[in-house]
This record gives sequence, structure tokens and C-alpha cells, in this order.
Amino acid sequence: MERAATDHPLFAVVELLGTFAFASSGAAAAKEQRLDWFGLFAVAYLTACGGGIVRDLCLGAVPPVGISEWRYLACSAFASIMTIGLRPLVEHLKRPVRWFDSVGLGFFAVVGAHQSLLRGAGVATAILLGTVTAVGGGVMRDVLLNRVPVILEKEIYALAAVVAAGIQVAGEVNRMPLGLTQCIAVAACLAIRFLALRYSWALPVIGGR
Amino acid sequence: MERAATDHPLFAVVELLGTFAFASSGAAAAKEQRLDWFGLFAVAYLTACGGGIVRDLCLGAVPPVGISEWRYLACSAFASIMTIGLRPLVEHLKRPVRWFDSVGLGFFAVVGAHQSLLRGAGVATAILLGTVTAVGGGVMRDVLLNRVPVILEKEIYALAAVVAAGIQVAGEVNRMPLGLTQCIAVAACLAIRFLALRYSWALPVIGGR
Amino acid sequence: MERAATDHPLFAVVELLGTFAFASSGAAAAKEQRLDWFGLFAVAYLTACGGGIVRDLCLGAVPPVGISEWRYLACSAFASIMTIGLRPLVEHLKRPVRWFDSVGLGFFAVVGAHQSLLRGAGVATAILLGTVTAVGGGVMRDVLLNRVPVILEKEIYALAAVVAAGIQVAGEVNRMPLGLTQCIAVAACLAIRFLALRYSWALPVIGGR
Repeated sequence: MERAATDHPLFAVVELLGTFAFASSGAAAAKEQRLDWFGLFAVAYLTACGGGIVRDLCLGAVPPVGISEWRYLACSAFASIMTIGLRPLVEHLKRPVRWFDSVGLGFFAVVGAHQSLLRGAGVATAILLGTVTAVGGGVMRDVLLNRVPVILEKEIYALAAVVAAGIQVAGEVNRMPLGLTQCIAVAACLAIRFLALRYSWALPVIGGR
Repeated sequence: MERAATDHPLFAVVELLGTFAFASSGAAAAKEQRLDWFGLFAVAYLTACGGGIVRDLCLGAVPPVGISEWRYLACSAFASIMTIGLRPLVEHLKRPVRWFDSVGLGFFAVVGAHQSLLRGAGVATAILLGTVTAVGGGVMRDVLLNRVPVILEKEIYALAAVVAAGIQVAGEVNRMPLGLTQCIAVAACLAIRFLALRYSWALPVIGGR
Repeated sequence: MERAATDHPLFAVVELLGTFAFASSGAAAAKEQRLDWFGLFAVAYLTACGGGIVRDLCLGAVPPVGISEWRYLACSAFASIMTIGLRPLVEHLKRPVRWFDSVGLGFFAVVGAHQSLLRGAGVATAILLGTVTAVGGGVMRDVLLNRVPVILEKEIYALAAVVAAGIQVAGEVNRMPLGLTQCIAVAACLAIRFLALRYSWALPVIGGR
């Protein structure tokens, strides 16, 4: 029963797409720090699966799917190789890392909120854990690469995940069709990110000039 | 049964006071690093609840109360707003961050040790997890803000948490009244911190000149 | 049943040796950063037990043995004192920290993979969690000391843990004698590390010159 939604083929595709996008962003960030191949895989994998692992630990879903299902590990490795191998092609695309991040962000917030509700979490907990699923891996990436997490100081980012998780929770509580809810939630997240990057939206910095 | 003690109104008040104090210290530290509002809330929340979340994960108490009870999240947000809003008033108070920290320290060590014993942990484990509850959030705050955790290099701090957790465990094992034990434990912690700051007590640095 | 293997006296000795070696490496790294005694103990303990704690959390084995068994804490404290106290004797030994690390590495990968299989994990999960057991503590040490984890950028290190975990899993799946499998796995790990340090083997750096 609990696995019903994740067994749906579309859901699995969406999840792997998000995994690919996040692992790509992790691999790109690791490359900048000149890590070796193992370090690059490790950072890519944790960026992709770290948030979901923390969510599963908090829900008591052990072992976390990010660990027990080999496809996430394989997808992370594949994404790392593609990201590094295709680097010459994407070198002149502006800030590809940010866009990879944004794509994964909405998917993961939706998945995280959905899994939390399936496990019997309340509304607030589901939104919180959806956000953790979405931004947790990025925080781990930045902590491992020894810098202040981007989500804590840059343009509206985590807020987009909160919105996506909130839409997903609202949709499921009101028994809207799951696929429709997910599309709206991810689209809202992407729209917020697009506008934030386009117009340099940012949350006010505390004590900023 | 397990929830009996936490359901006591005084216990809840004490816990929220500790949460407020820790979240304040997190918010103040985040402000210094010029994070945006989301980053500030996230650091404040993790400083307040991070230690307790790790404790609950280690005890198998999932989802951790810091995640499942919305009042900790609300209290952290409230503390963040108060800390930033009242900043002009407290600006000339000397090192307010340290004192906020010290207040939370004793409370959390006591709560953590108590919860561990309720969950059937042994004496050594309860003291260890009490200390983790007290200092875990501060370590997360410092790791996120990309600095060596204060507790690892500053005046006697974590030791005060160890003492508070130890007194709590000794009191409960000897069936002393719970409220009395807690007061003594927290008072001992505050006294140690006061003396450490007053006389610049510090543990010896290894290999220090 | 699950505890059968860990109850074997030889297994316990091997595990404490690994704990000692890892805690030593943590204490030595903490000393370089001029932490106080509490910080030094904390880093030594987390270096030794951090990987195993994460493994146990992922396997749902709560409380993690690194927390519930006082001998790991005692062993870490003992190792810290020995490492600091014997420092004058070992000062002119070349890079002792690396060797302490390598000894613990093989032991922990083997133990982690073994525990994962006992808990019903699959082959890929057991290798992954064996690696996490081996390198997780070192990653925590480096994150706490505010530097990019050594395993992500230095000579072949984590790969040796992957190999040791893989041999252990292959041996157990094929029902080879447990003691023999462990010896081969640890020996393979040490050989890889020896060769990597001797000939400065390293994984290629992405985007290197």
C-alpha cells in the first residue's frame, strides 16, 4: 500500500529525473573544487539522495530508499559521468548548475511531502520534510565542500521548495488527483525560481544595508 | 506512559524556554553571517532542535518531536523575530549570544537525559545523549555557518552539559523528585558557565603554549 | 542470533583495535587545530564511531552500538590520551595519522558490511554501508574541523574501503569462513593503501590541469 505511488512508472521516472538533476549539480560543484572521481561521485550521490535519506530516517523508513535501491546510486554515477563528459558542450550555458538545482528542487519537495503523508505525518511535518528532502542534499553538498550552504544566503530557493511541498500537501489533503497536484506543485516551484533568477529576487538579508 | 513527563505543563514551559534561548543564539549567529530570512530561520530552528532530533533518531523515537510537534518550529520562528527585532535594545549588552546559549544548555541536557532514560537507555548512554541534545544544535549551527564548532575550542561549555546530564541521571536513578533534580541540574550548569565566563576558565588546549 | 558474530571474542578485539586506530587519527587531527580536551575527545569519538552510528541509524539498529556500548566511548578516550601522551615518541614517525587511518579503514568496512548483511541488507547496500562505516567518521572529523574531507581529494582511500567491503560481502554470500574472509578483506585494504601511499597513486582529478 505504502509503495503504491512509488511503484507507478511515471512516479519512478520523475524521481529518477530529479535524482539526475541533483546529482549533476553536485558533480558540477565538486568539479570546481577539484575533487577526485570518488569524491565527485560521493558528493553527487549525497546531493541527490541526502535529503531523502534524512527524511526516511525521520519517518523511520529504514533502510532509506536512497540506500536500499541501487538505482539511485547508479543514476548518480550516470549523472556524474554525463555532467563531466558533456561539460565542453554546456560550458557556455549560463549558470547551468542553478537550473539543474531548480529542476530537482520541485520534484523532491513533492516526493518528500507525499512520502511523509503516506507514512502518517501531519500537514506541518509533511511540508517540513518535503522541504528537507528538496534542500537537504544541497546543504550536505555545501557542508562537504566547506562553504556556507547556498540556500541560506542566495536568491529565493528553499522558499520555492516550501511552496511546492505546501501545494502537494494541500492537494493530497483535499484529495485532488495525484498527478495533477504534482504537476502544479513542480510548475509553481519552477516559476518561482525562474522569476527569482530573472529579476534577482531575494529574501531580505538581516541587518543588510 | 513515555509521554507522561513531557505532558506535565511545567516541563513543556521549560522545554519551550530552552528552545527559545537556543533559537535566539542561532538567529544571532546567522545574522552575523548576513544570511537571508529563510537561512536565519533554518539555522535558528536547527540550533534549537538539531540536538533533540539526533537524540530521537538514536533512540528510535520517530518522527523526532522536534519535527512532529509544530510548536518547536513556531517557537524558533518567534525567537528569530524577537531576537532580530529587539536587536537595537540588546546591542550594548555584552555577549548576549553566550548567555542565551548557557540558559538553553542546562535545560536541554536535562531533557535529553530524561528522555533517554524513559526510552530505556543505560546510565552512560543517557549522559551521552543528554549532552548531544544540549550541544548538538550548536555544533550544527557552527558547521552550517562554516566555522569550527565553538564547543570544541572555547571555555568550559560542553562539560557543563555533561554535568547537568549526569546530575539528572543520578537523580532519576536514585528516584529523587523529578522537578527538584531538574532545578539542581540546570542550576549547576548555569553556575559552571557563569564561573567559566567570569574567570575565563577553559579546558587546557592540547599542545598549547 | 544477530549478535552471534559480534559476541565472538576475536571480533570484539578487532573492533576495538579499529576504534582505537580511528580515534587516534581523530585526536591527532584535533590536536593540530588546537582544540581543548573536550573537543579532542569529541572529535576522536566521532571519528571512531560516527560511521558506525550512521550505519546503525540506516539499518534501524537503535540505539546504535557506538552509543549504547560504553566500551567504544572508553576506547576513544583511552586512544586520545595515548595519542597525545605518546606524541613525543611518535613525533618523528612519518605521517602516523595516515597509517592509523588505514588500519581502521579495513576493519570498519568489514564490520559494516557484515552488520548490514546480518540485518538483511542486499549486496549493494551492504557494500555502501560498509564504506560508510569505514569513511563516515573521517568525513565527520573533517567537517567538524572545517576542511574538505580528505577522502574526497586525496590518494586512493575510500576505494580501499569499497574493496574491503566488497570482498567481505562476496565471501559471506559464498559462505566462506568468516574469519578468513575478514583477514583477506582487511589485508587487501592495507595493501591498496600501502601501494597508494608508496607510489602516490591517486584517482584522477576532474578537470585537472
